[in-house]
Amino acid sequence: MALTGVLRPGHAQLRVLDLEADVKLYRDVLGLEETGRDSFGRVYLKAWDERDHHSLLLRQADQAGIDLMGFKVDSIASLDRLEADLNAFGVKTERVPAGEMLNTGDRVRFVSPMGHTIELYAEKKDVGNGLSYENPPPWNAAAERGIAPARLDHALLGGVDLDGTIDIFTKVLGFFPVEILYAEDGKTVVAIWLSCSCKTHDLALIRLPENGKLHHVSFWLDSWERVLRAGDIMSMNNVSVDIGPTRHGITRGATIYAFDRSGNRFETFSGGYGAYPDMKPIVWSIDHLPEGLDYVQRKLHQSFLTVFS
Amino acid sequence: MALTGVLRPGHAQLRVLDLEADVKLYRDVLGLEETGRDSFGRVYLKAWDERDHHSLLLRQADQAGIDLMGFKVDSIASLDRLEADLNAFGVKTERVPAGEMLNTGDRVRFVSPMGHTIELYAEKKDVGNGLSYENPPPWNAAAERGIAPARLDHALLGGVDLDGTIDIFTKVLGFFPVEILYAEDGKTVVAIWLSCSCKTHDLALIRLPENGKLHHVSFWLDSWERVLRAGDIMSMNNVSVDIGPTRHGITRGATIYAFDRSGNRFETFSGGYGAYPDMKPIVWSIDHLPEGLDYVQRKLHQSFLTVFS
Amino acid sequence: MALTGVLRPGHAQLRVLDLEADVKLYRDVLGLEETGRDSFGRVYLKAWDERDHHSLLLRQADQAGIDLMGFKVDSIASLDRLEADLNAFGVKTERVPAGEMLNTGDRVRFVSPMGHTIELYAEKKDVGNGLSYENPPPWNAAAERGIAPARLDHALLGGVDLDGTIDIFTKVLGFFPVEILYAEDGKTVVAIWLSCSCKTHDLALIRLPENGKLHHVSFWLDSWERVLRAGDIMSMNNVSVDIGPTRHGITRGATIYAFDRSGNRFETFSGGYGAYPDMKPIVWSIDHLPEGLDYVQRKLHQSFLTVFS
Amino acid sequence: MALTGVLRPGHAQLRVLDLEADVKLYRDVLGLEETGRDSFGRVYLKAWDERDHHSLLLRQADQAGIDLMGFKVDSIASLDRLEADLNAFGVKTERVPAGEMLNTGDRVRFVSPMGHTIELYAEKKDVGNGLSYENPPPWNAAAERGIAPARLDHALLGGVDLDGTIDIFTKVLGFFPVEILYAEDGKTVVAIWLSCSCKTHDLALIRLPENGKLHHVSFWLDSWERVLRAGDIMSMNNVSVDIGPTRHGITRGATIYAFDRSGNRFETFSGGYGAYPDMKPIVWSIDHLPEGLDYVQRKLHQSFLTVFS
Repeated sequence: MALTGVLRPGHAQLRVLDLEADVKLYRDVLGLEETGRDSFGRVYLKAWDERDHHSLLLRQADQAGIDLMGFKVDSIASLDRLEADLNAFGVKTERVPAGEMLNTGDRVRFVSPMGHTIELYAEKKDVGNGLSYENPPPWNAAAERGIAPARLDHALLGGVDLDGTIDIFTKVLGFFPVEILYAEDGKTVVAIWLSCSCKTHDLALIRLPENGKLHHVSFWLDSWERVLRAGDIMSMNNVSVDIGPTRHGITRGATIYAFDRSGNRFETFSGGYGAYPDMKPIVWSIDHLPEGLDYVQRKLHQSFLTVFS
Repeated sequence: MALTGVLRPGHAQLRVLDLEADVKLYRDVLGLEETGRDSFGRVYLKAWDERDHHSLLLRQADQAGIDLMGFKVDSIASLDRLEADLNAFGVKTERVPAGEMLNTGDRVRFVSPMGHTIELYAEKKDVGNGLSYENPPPWNAAAERGIAPARLDHALLGGVDLDGTIDIFTKVLGFFPVEILYAEDGKTVVAIWLSCSCKTHDLALIRLPENGKLHHVSFWLDSWERVLRAGDIMSMNNVSVDIGPTRHGITRGATIYAFDRSGNRFETFSGGYGAYPDMKPIVWSIDHLPEGLDYVQRKLHQSFLTVFS
Repeated sequence: MALTGVLRPGHAQLRVLDLEADVKLYRDVLGLEETGRDSFGRVYLKAWDERDHHSLLLRQADQAGIDLMGFKVDSIASLDRLEADLNAFGVKTERVPAGEMLNTGDRVRFVSPMGHTIELYAEKKDVGNGLSYENPPPWNAAAERGIAPARLDHALLGGVDLDGTIDIFTKVLGFFPVEILYAEDGKTVVAIWLSCSCKTHDLALIRLPENGKLHHVSFWLDSWERVLRAGDIMSMNNVSVDIGPTRHGITRGATIYAFDRSGNRFETFSGGYGAYPDMKPIVWSIDHLPEGLDYVQRKLHQSFLTVFS
Repeated sequence: MALTGVLRPGHAQLRVLDLEADVKLYRDVLGLEETGRDSFGRVYLKAWDERDHHSLLLRQADQAGIDLMGFKVDSIASLDRLEADLNAFGVKTERVPAGEMLNTGDRVRFVSPMGHTIELYAEKKDVGNGLSYENPPPWNAAAERGIAPARLDHALLGGVDLDGTIDIFTKVLGFFPVEILYAEDGKTVVAIWLSCSCKTHDLALIRLPENGKLHHVSFWLDSWERVLRAGDIMSMNNVSVDIGPTRHGITRGATIYAFDRSGNRFETFSGGYGAYPDMKPIVWSIDHLPEGLDYVQRKLHQSFLTVFS
């Protein structure tokens, strides 16, 4: 986790057009566990190996997209400190009281310069991963129910003021850049992969003409064999696959992208490498994006570059 | 192997436009071993785990494509018997004397109704796979030189008279159908996967308006992880990838297709299932070809369906 | 399959000490499907990807071990011919009429010189693998129920007259030797791996001081990742594991051996290489047995060498 | 990395009995790259995907074992602060000046209560991983030279005052417990797996009657398939394997342990799960150590429990 106490992406809340259809997709095909529903109509889900109460929330809406993304911090003290730091950096925050989200403590919320609602929180109920905390087996049947990713891993968000958003995540929240894609001028950042851990990305950001956009939320699988299994299960369930299976040049991840029933893109992936803040970022020039995106085919996939929710 | 004594595809001879460029591709990128050159200018190659002298021959030509495909039979007696059987079935054969192809015995050659030159032979020099015949390790460095398939596995050939060709392979040579793709009428065979072993295919055939065409020659890898590695190596060497990595619905194989420097398509694949002649063939209807071809994406890839050499 | 028409091991019948305990093991832990019970009290099971009615039979007995092993042949004609060939070779056979074993045609039975009851049969009811014969997906939930091997693969049988038994399998039934383990004298065969297909073994035989012994029956998994999964599931179910996961030097297979509740050893494995009758057998000397058995550890495992049922 | 700025294990210095024999082992069999030798006779090595100058040092000695283990911190400021924090906690430190170790900055050194020399440092020369920092491929030939782990991952150290050592790592250096093995009394910690990142362990500690002992240093592989490959390569090179391939119940890692030519144990492993400080530690009772150690076999391996260097 970051030196600032930011641990990891803890939840994403997505808008879907037909709640039950997408609950079915995320629960029965992706294989998340439904852990609750609230009075706002939100459905809560978690990946099998996550212990906190939820990592994905779905709500019915007229338009697909992402409502908010939350990052867990290690303590109330860190939450308070980061709130102050954000304010000191000129970022306006608000507190969402504990309980507004099921089993979740106070959240410090701000809108990023790219128009995304970002939250920090320190507390979420530990509901366990279904394995005992004493002498557990390495996995259980839940690890094979549907695609069964182990966890929510990261998201790729898009909007106009990329530089301002990077500043907040790197200068206040302690994220560091792992890989950076530059425009032809060699200076303008087109996209960036940021980590607050030793993963290759906890959050990726892309410059877009419109704010508040979602490219994808991503879920972690333990192996390339599980990636193919994910693709098989998508096909068995008529999930619309965007690209993959393939490997990204950027981050080295092995991946499949698909769409939920509402047009939100999600990724199931594995791989990457250990990333640390003392490592010089890998840089990509836009003319190498084809292999950055699809290393095997060295191909730009039009839908991948143009479809956002 | 077939009850008739046909063992397996033993060699394919390809025409290439720039011999040294494609020798470099098949030898240094695919990782075949060059085992000889002959006075006709042909270059002989073998996969690392093959013991016979060669399985691929390349020759310079003005047009890419396949000159011939050879199947090894278990004995001189089987060769003689199959020659007689072919003749009795109305197939004209000729003998190519031992030595015309390096380290290879007499070949019985015929032209299939689809216009491909097919050969049977019983003898090819055992040059070993580089591991001892006594107390060998499971592999050696050659198993990781380039993509390093273990063996030539099969080919997909196209032409007009599909039915006549199927007849020869099934009624005379002892192949059996494993999977069959039917046209909309539910009767016309569009493509067929034939085995003379317990592999899912030793030869695949597709109906085309033109004779003597090659869709691909295929090479076997031991795992899906090796398939991704193959894709990485293709990209590192600017090999033009056609489709994949993905899984075929047809035969279940996990695969990447790419082109050599001359436009001949080759496959590196793994997977499938044990196939036997007592098993009812799997049938595909043309409207299910998308998932038959690319199970994950359920997509027809135009180049895959239209490009032949 | 062999030139003689012998296709593959089709069934093994094991004696178990507590029928329901071992039905539970083979069905719920190994993940075979129970397909029937007969008036003799035998329980019939099949692996998920097998299409014939059964490949394993269990019966209650006072002593563990193997009652019989059956090989499927391609036709009634081959069955008749092989019966005659066996007799001509001096092997006494008897016919077990169709129906004695559920959904199975006539069986030609003989006792091998090593004291095992061996059967040939041409007919067993096709009950399907749960996937359609038309446009099937590559797998379904059954492929992940328990360890879920795709098929019965082979068995290793032990007894006194190894040479006489090899003769019958190679000279009459068309099996060929793939790998051979020799005693210190360099002449006495200690064990042999025989194939009637292009697998590395359909039957393995070992010289023992006692007749009719079973070392193991073996089940095929599609990958090394599935081998670890098998080991995890064994552990979760308190199955007694003998050796593995490891790789055999002999046949290159990647494997785990375990015991059923009665002390019959079974293997779950993957790997090996394509074997053909034109290939010179690999030979092992007894001093290299450690790496032949456990390539990684180069270790003789005492139980593995001494425990038979 | 820890909130304190401790990033990861950066180097271990081992004593070996025959320097060139073990350089050969670590360089040519394990596949580390030799990056330097110094005037003290130390040989410096790094794993292929590490960018810092070295992660393993070997020196000739009369007795095998570990001289020191170094952890990289994120900045000079963190180094200074941690030095002060250690001193405030009652831990005596000394500074080893930059340059004493090749290409390495100042090190803050202390002896843990278990008798191990532990170092912190902020600077080590970035020599790259052989891939460009611009538009790199995902790997190159170095990733397949020998076993080729991606990185040094962790070590397991043993000694008397386990509790005092845990205190320093958790209370001063910011490590958190991921899994804990308790003695029969349910209170005494026998062994502990500590993380300063989101890995399952950056350092493991075990209670032993003697101080300063090494159980193993561990190297990371990207997949279970690479673990088997590691085992194959060990066998090809007559490396003495201790246990594996198998899976640990503790941390879920899939592993092989082996000995260098001097008797120092090293591990090549893959797997585990994402660990964070907000997660309740997994606890193991000593009677479950068999499956904690070897999940598949549920077996205590005597050498594994008794051999230290």
